[in-house]
Amino acid sequence: MAAQEKNLADLFLDTLKDIYYAEKQILKALPKMAKAAQSPELKKAFEAHRDETEGHVERLAEVFELIGKAPRGKTCDAILGIIEEGRAIIEEFEGSPALDAGLVAAAQAVEHYEMARYGTLKAWAKELGHKDAVSLLDQTLSEETKTDKLLSQLGISSTNKMAA
Amino acid sequence: MAAQEKNLADLFLDTLKDIYYAEKQILKALPKMAKAAQSPELKKAFEAHRDETEGHVERLAEVFELIGKAPRGKTCDAILGIIEEGRAIIEEFEGSPALDAGLVAAAQAVEHYEMARYGTLKAWAKELGHKDAVSLLDQTLSEETKTDKLLSQLGISSTNKMAA
Repeated sequence: MAAQEKNLADLFLDTLKDIYYAEKQILKALPKMAKAAQSPELKKAFEAHRDETEGHVERLAEVFELIGKAPRGKTCDAILGIIEEGRAIIEEFEGSPALDAGLVAAAQAVEHYEMARYGTLKAWAKELGHKDAVSLLDQTLSEETKTDKLLSQLGISSTNKMAA
Repeated sequence: MAAQEKNLADLFLDTLKDIYYAEKQILKALPKMAKAAQSPELKKAFEAHRDETEGHVERLAEVFELIGKAPRGKTCDAILGIIEEGRAIIEEFEGSPALDAGLVAAAQAVEHYEMARYGTLKAWAKELGHKDAVSLLDQTLSEETKTDKLLSQLGISSTNKMAA
């Protein structure tokens, strides 16, 4: 298809593939972050978010179905870069009292990427009249926002512990 | 320095270098996005944000100075990936009525990355007792948040125009 013939539905599908790929990468990264985390609370938060992420992948599959497409991912350079930065933190701060703070920061960069994407997809689904998709995307957006807030709290408690 | 000897101040400096590099990349990307934008409002928003971004780079240089370090960037894979996705949108949707919506989405991914980083840096600066840095980082965080909201509005008006 020529670029000028592409419309909002094409952009929606492209972005859906982007976040579908991203969620699958996040699913692989979270157990590594849980393993690296020093505090039991942060470990637990990463494990819980891993389970939640499985639900996000399923919801995306439902959105694909609603628009009559097969769920398929498309390489997302953004999430690969964000996850790579998390991996570097684990390597560079292993055994350091600052590791948990670094892990929280890495995870919040992931959450913010997702919040941007789900916010966009929700707005476009609304515009395209995909009401059921709006609701599914909104549920995930709420969960990502909630996770980001929880991470902020865990980040503060982790740096407070360091200072103590 | 061995990983286990690293502390929150090292993590703060690392992340400062990351966002300093990111802001400089964004400074280069924004004129390309302004050039590609179809609506005069979006073009203007990208141009205004480019000027604002110059101020963000300067503020970061001040933060480096406050902690007694020379301003230096460190390759940030995350922003490179996010900007690459924006470049792909321009290429794949050139001449399409959906181009502006795609540009808005790409720019919001950039804003969210910055919001995550500035939020983290602000929390750490507080913990480390760098009061003046907290204020500088907070100013930029507010501007990024405001830009994200403006982009949401421009995104809605761009998709509304397509439907009309």
